[in-house]
Formats: sequence, structure tokens, C-alpha cells
Amino acid sequence: MEQTLQRLKEITREVQLLEHINALLGWDQETYMPKGAVEERGDQLALLQGLLHRKSTDPEIGDLLGRLGATEENPMGSSELKDLDKRFIRTVFRLYNRETKLPESLVTEMARVSSKALAVWGEARKENDFSKFAPFLEKLVQLNREKAKCFGFTEHPYDPLLDEFEPWIKTREVEKVFSLLREDLADLLGRIREKPQVKHDFLFSDYPVADQEEFARSVLKDLGYEDNRGRLDLSTHPFTTTLGSDDVRITTRYNSNFFPTGLCGVIHEAGHALYELGMGPEIKGTILSGGTSLGIHESQSRMWENLVGRSRSFWKHYYPRLKAKFPSALRDTSLEEFYKAFNKVESTFIRVEADEVTYSLHIILRFEIELQLITGSLKVKEVPEYWNSTFKKLFGVTPKDDREGCLQDIHWSMGAFGYFPTYALGNLYAAQFFNTLKGEMPGLEGEIEKGNFPLLLSWLREKIHHPGNSMTADELVKSVTGEPLNSRYFVEYLNNKYREIYDL
Amino acid sequence: MEQTLQRLKEITREVQLLEHINALLGWDQETYMPKGAVEERGDQLALLQGLLHRKSTDPEIGDLLGRLGATEENPMGSSELKDLDKRFIRTVFRLYNRETKLPESLVTEMARVSSKALAVWGEARKENDFSKFAPFLEKLVQLNREKAKCFGFTEHPYDPLLDEFEPWIKTREVEKVFSLLREDLADLLGRIREKPQVKHDFLFSDYPVADQEEFARSVLKDLGYEDNRGRLDLSTHPFTTTLGSDDVRITTRYNSNFFPTGLCGVIHEAGHALYELGMGPEIKGTILSGGTSLGIHESQSRMWENLVGRSRSFWKHYYPRLKAKFPSALRDTSLEEFYKAFNKVESTFIRVEADEVTYSLHIILRFEIELQLITGSLKVKEVPEYWNSTFKKLFGVTPKDDREGCLQDIHWSMGAFGYFPTYALGNLYAAQFFNTLKGEMPGLEGEIEKGNFPLLLSWLREKIHHPGNSMTADELVKSVTGEPLNSRYFVEYLNNKYREIYDL
Repeated sequence: MEQTLQRLKEITREVQLLEHINALLGWDQETYMPKGAVEERGDQLALLQGLLHRKSTDPEIGDLLGRLGATEENPMGSSELKDLDKRFIRTVFRLYNRETKLPESLVTEMARVSSKALAVWGEARKENDFSKFAPFLEKLVQLNREKAKCFGFTEHPYDPLLDEFEPWIKTREVEKVFSLLREDLADLLGRIREKPQVKHDFLFSDYPVADQEEFARSVLKDLGYEDNRGRLDLSTHPFTTTLGSDDVRITTRYNSNFFPTGLCGVIHEAGHALYELGMGPEIKGTILSGGTSLGIHESQSRMWENLVGRSRSFWKHYYPRLKAKFPSALRDTSLEEFYKAFNKVESTFIRVEADEVTYSLHIILRFEIELQLITGSLKVKEVPEYWNSTFKKLFGVTPKDDREGCLQDIHWSMGAFGYFPTYALGNLYAAQFFNTLKGEMPGLEGEIEKGNFPLLLSWLREKIHHPGNSMTADELVKSVTGEPLNSRYFVEYLNNKYREIYDL
Repeated sequence: MEQTLQRLKEITREVQLLEHINALLGWDQETYMPKGAVEERGDQLALLQGLLHRKSTDPEIGDLLGRLGATEENPMGSSELKDLDKRFIRTVFRLYNRETKLPESLVTEMARVSSKALAVWGEARKENDFSKFAPFLEKLVQLNREKAKCFGFTEHPYDPLLDEFEPWIKTREVEKVFSLLREDLADLLGRIREKPQVKHDFLFSDYPVADQEEFARSVLKDLGYEDNRGRLDLSTHPFTTTLGSDDVRITTRYNSNFFPTGLCGVIHEAGHALYELGMGPEIKGTILSGGTSLGIHESQSRMWENLVGRSRSFWKHYYPRLKAKFPSALRDTSLEEFYKAFNKVESTFIRVEADEVTYSLHIILRFEIELQLITGSLKVKEVPEYWNSTFKKLFGVTPKDDREGCLQDIHWSMGAFGYFPTYALGNLYAAQFFNTLKGEMPGLEGEIEKGNFPLLLSWLREKIHHPGNSMTADELVKSVTGEPLNSRYFVEYLNNKYREIYDL
């Protein structure tokens, strides 16, 4: 048994190393690669992904898993094994199953269609012509239905799609949580919209990029993101990528005429990176390392970005420094005015620019559409109308066209169904974790007011980062907060925060 | 036959892609990788090199080569094949033989010993204690003898070692060329040493790094190194690395108190990079791309660095620009004084800092020692004394210790025997090519005086770069210059240049 386990650890370590190599190719492509290299980089990535697929579907893995007693009913294997080994087997079993259950023909077809769909989506969005994109979306929905069938499901065809990004959770659970959340957020937004808007023109001013970068780097250092285990670079879209246990890199972009973009990007990605860098000693360097789900990952990025980085405590410390850095832009602005502007809530159309209150509503809309597309209760051609009418119900406004409506996001054109919900789950997990954190660490706000984050980071490491994916999201939330996922904490947090900002 | 060839092209293309991926890992490690990642990067490289070895020793390659008629006597395969395909088969046959003839035990032992030797060499050099390094050098010599036996040789045990870096050339040929060169260079150096030294103190002054970099980038652009197919970064030791047909990157380092280091490094590496980027359309993206030997590679870097970049014509164009960039350092220095200082000749002890006249003498010394170590006519413990007495004969001075003598270079500690001669061969090839070039392009000097390099680069591309390794070094030299390797051109070039600088 010990030997079998050992061999399984060796193979999965190789899978992990190949994934890190793959990540380097991707990072380089987005940061420093000369433009002329793009086509051949595609060949390199294709070769590597082929190797990765072959390695992670090696029949030897299936054989070893069998000998360790892992089955669909009992993915953790033999009861004689140590707890952490059982969790290791569960992770490998899930990955192996996902990799081997899809026939190669479906993988190829998905790649072929989504590559074409991506290009067409770009044109359709530019030309504001949903009908151009519709046949591809139709095809991608159908392929996702087939995919769900291949993986198999007992409750809902959306379950195996969701499982790709948020392992082990069920559609039913997300539906339950989102339906409560939907009402609470729509209600809060409605109340805010009746109040006068906060002043925020000073955020759109002259913020030289070099100064923004210097400021962002000083914050990054305070947060505990170390130079010798990561780095910050520029890219078109901010991202975090894991190139090794001690090599997790982030990127951002700066807008010289709008301050929040750059800093929020840096803090958000640092949250992802600190998670990846926080694996416990038994987890680090094994396939158990890395975030346990995209939702939990997003909880870390959003906790740092929103619950910490948009808090009054945070700006009590950093605002004087920011003002000193950008004296002309912020000369006439008080901390209070800045704090409110930084947290302005508004019914806008573009998800990636949304505030803390409206963001999850954007997600709920997409989730409802995805579910109905997959079950077939909504037809692709009905999407624009459904989008616009639901948007009006949730936000009180209607997109003027599909460009700022159902054509705005890239995900569907990539064939990714089941991804969106993880963004909103991240908000919920974050607030639920933060509520426990505040209870266990009464001096937290005082620490943040001093720009001291080591205690906060230690808590996150010990409670959330250390287990990597050895705990499922559900196990983790229960172990940290004592109860399953509950949207109450997020709603409470928002209500308390915005009651005061908007004088509700 | 066509299908067999096609399959061989596919497999070798995969080998090439893996090599490019490997190069990216190396490049990243030397430029942007966070320090903490170094150990795991080692694991990634080891995995990749394992994959590369397995792929390039795939028995299918041997089988395909056999079916194409390739044998030791006839490495180009069947006479029915097209010329370029024959050359392709020759390249694959050589690589496959080299990869498969060494038993894995020897490869492992070599890696084990040289890894240890590298560390010990570092200490021995620091402590100026050759006896500490001697047992490792002894072992590495012995392993290199075994290596030679595994590859097999008909004339000289050094042949297969040399072949690793300078394919297809024989020790006998190098010996013949070097013995003439040795006398000519020692004679020229002797005559220079009798003359007063040129003034050069202004090269050691305040040269701010940012300004050096800006200047170097402007030169780089003029040379024809394009931004969309490469990039320039900083690293401890300058290097060039090929990450793809359209992705060849260079690095340099700057010394803020000595001007030549940075610019010469940039021009030298650009010479390597332009070669790699200059493959002809039928060669590009195949295993025939890349330099045909280290000697020919070095001919390109040294031609740009020395024959172009240290010429009076070059500085006629660039010196006014340089002076404008560094007005305080060069205020009182004329073009003539600068040109002479930039070309100062002196008997110094460190190879990497040597001038054009003495450089090859450093190499000849190492070559003679290597030959005798491999044949056994010189014992490891006799190396320091042999080094110092030969040095005195060649340079007229004696190193004060082994640190500036036989312990200075890293190559032997890495187990690399046969590498050194390629540096001097590069000087010879460069001068021989340049002589032909000047004959075929009478306006060359005028072009250089205007900082115009497109004609020069086109000539190099067409004559030298396009064939990649489809031509051996010998074939290439004969095809370009009409005769085999001849040291006369290099000696003539040096005599003409230094007669004038030192008033000989």
C-alpha cells in the first residue's frame, strides 16, 4: 500500500511540474514574449498540453487508484489509510476521472468550436450583433450538455459543469443560496438608488503610472507578498499564476486617469497569490497544493481587495500616504470623501467594473441563464431579451444594446459554463470567513489601521491556506466558521457598510 | 520514403519544441525568476530534460533513420533523397548517435561529478588552492576519456569531444591551424609590447547605467535586431538563447565605471541572435535551424563585436553620439584616442577580459592542455606549472597565482572538454568571412561609417545564416570563401589594424 501510494505521489508530482512549466509559458506570453513568437508559442503549449494530458490519464494512475480502493462511492480509498493520504487520493481520483471520462473527440470538438466562437464573439460584440454569435453559443451549449452526460450526474446536468470550477458543490445548493442573495441585494441596491450619489470626480484625475506603481508596491510589501517568492509585472488583463511552490506571480494594469483600477488589481491578485503561497508543509509541492475551488480562491482575492482594501480602517492608514503621492489630484479631498468615492455603488452594465453591491447580481443573472440553457428551458435566441428584462428587474435599468448586455463577457465563447457562480461564491465565502476572523481577532481593525497585516495573514494561512485542496470548500467553510455556506454574512456586511455611506 | 521522412520531421520538431521550452526555463531563471524558486526550477528542468532525452533517443528515430539508409559511413542516407533531406538526415543521425551512444550510467556519473566539481572549483578558486580541485579534474578527465571511447574515434580521442561543440571537425585540423596561429600571435604581441601603451583612463569613468542602456539599445536597433523577435534583459553573465524561430533573446550587464563591458556584450550577443534569427525559409522551424557549430556561432558574435564594433568606421559614426551621451567622461577625448583605447592590447591573465590579439593565445594554451590531459601525456597535478611556463612563453608574463591562472575558467569543472577551441575558431572564421565580404561589397566601410547595416546583414543572412546546420562549418567556409579554414586572414587583419594603432 505504502509503495502504491508513493508511486502515485511521484506521477502526480510530475503532472504538477508540467503544469508549472505550462504556467511559465503562459506567463511569459502575457508579459515579456516578443510579439513575433506568438504562433510558435501555440505549438509549444499544444505539445506540453498533450504531454500533460497523457501523463494525467496514464492508465497506471487508474490502476494505482484501484489498488488503493478508490471508487465513485468511496473516492478516498481504503479506510486503513492515513487521513491526509485519503484526501490526496480523493483529489487524484477526481482529476483522473475528469481527464479520462471525456472522449478525445469531444475535447477536440470543444477546442475547435470555442476557438472559432472566440473570434466570432469578438466580432459580434464589436458589431453589436448577437445573431452572429448565436449559432456558436448554441453549439457550445450542446457540447456542454454532452460533456455533462459524459461525466454523469444524479441531480442536475449543471452539476458536473460546476464541479470543474467549484469541486464537490451541487447546483441545488448554489440555487438556494443565490435566491436569497438575489432578493437581499436587489433590496439594498433599491434603497441606495433612492439616495444622492457620492462625489467621486477626483478619482478620475491625473495619476502618473510610475507613482501608482510605487504606491502599489509599497502596499504589496505590507500585505506580506514577498519578493523572493513572486513578482509583479504588467499585462493587458491582471492575473495570478503559479509557476512553483515558491513562485507565484501576479500582474496588473494601471489607468493613468483613474486611480482604483491599478491598486485594486494588485491587491486582488495578491490575495490569490498569498493563498497559493500559503500551503502547509505537508501540502506544499504535492498535488494537494493550490486553491481548493475557484470560489475559495476568489474569497481570498476579494477579502483583501474589498473587506480589507476598501475599508475605512485601511484608508485611515494609507490615505495620508496616497495624498502625499498624488497631491494635485487629491488636494481638496478628505479621507471621508475618498472612502465614499472608492465605494460608490451604482447600477452599471459592465460586470468587471461593478461595485461590491451590484457585482453578485451580475453573476446571479448569468447563473440563471446558464442553468436554463443547459436544461433547455431557455433558448439561445431568447437570451438577449431574458438578459435585458431580468437586468431591469435586478438593477432598475436596461442595457442600451447587447454589447453592454449579454455579449460583454468572454466566458461563454470559451465554452466555460459553471465558471461565473464562483465569483459570487467568493464574495459570500469571504464575508463568512471575515466574520469569524473578526470574532477571533478583536484587534483586527486596529491592525489594519496601522497597515499591519502579519496577524491577519497568519490567521488566513493557518485556517484557510494550509490545507490546500485537501479540504473541499464545504469542509473548509465548516471547519473555519462552524457552519455551511451562508449568504447572511455578506448581506450583513454590505448593509452595515452602505447604511453608513449612503445614510440609509 | 516520403512518409518515413515526414514522420522523422514530426518527431524532431517535437524535440526542437521541447528544447525551446527548456530554453525558456533557463532564460527565466537568469532574468526574472524569484530567488526562492531556484530549487523547484531544478526539478522542472530535470523533468524536461528527461522528456527531451527520451524523445531524442526514441528507438523509432533509429528505425526511421535505418529505413532512410543512414549509416556511420553514409550518414546522409539514401542517394535518391533530395539534397536538403540528406542534410536533414545527417543532422538527425549525428544527434541520435550522440544521444544513444552514451550509457545512462556515464551520463549520470558525469552529472554527479561535475555538480560536485563545480562547487569545489568555486571554493578552490576563492582559496587559490588547485590541489583541492585536482581530484575532481582528474575524475572529469577520466570520464571524458570514457565518453570518447563510447562515441568511438579513428584518429584522436579528442575528436569525439570536439565534435560535441564543433561538429565534423578533426583535432588534427585544429592543431595544424593553431600551431601557425600561435606563432603569428606571439610575434605580433611581442612587437606591440615593445611600444608605448595607449591612453585609456577615460574608459574608466562615470558611465550611468541608464544612459549606457539607452545607447546600447539604439545600436541594437541599427544592427537589425528587431523588437518583435527578441528582447534585451539584464543577467549576471551575458547570453543568447533561442526560445523559438522568432524568439531569440539576449542579455547583458553594465559596469557603471567602465564603458566597454556593456556595449560589447550587447553587440556580441546580438551577433549570436542575428544568426539564430536568420534561418532560411526551408530551414526555419526544423531541426536544421540554429548555428552549425559553436565556432561559426562565435564567428558571428565576434564579427559584429570586433570587426564591426571595434572598427574605426563604426566609431566615426557612433563616437559623436557617445560623446553627447557621456559628455563629462569623454569631454577631452578625441575619436582617435577613444578608438585606440577601445582596442588596447596588453598581456593580461584573464581570458574573458582579453583583447583581440591575446584572446586566441589564451585559447591555444587551454587547447594544448586539454589535448595532453586526454591523451595522458600531461598529468592533472602538472597543469599549474605547465600553464604558468607556457603562459610566460606566449605572453611574456607569469600569473601570480592559480586564481589568475589555471583556476580561472568554469568549463573544466562542468566536464566540458572540446569547448574552448571554438572561441578561437570563431575569430578565424570571422576574419575569413569578413575578408570575402569586403571583396564582394566594396562600399562596406562607407556603410558602417554611416551606421547602416542592412546590406551587411543581408549578406550574412544569405551566405551564412540561411543554411543553418544543413551545411557543416567546413562546407560553409568553403562555400562562402572558396577555401577551407585559414588563419591567414585573421593574422592579416590583426597586423593591419595594430600596425597602425601601435605604430609597429
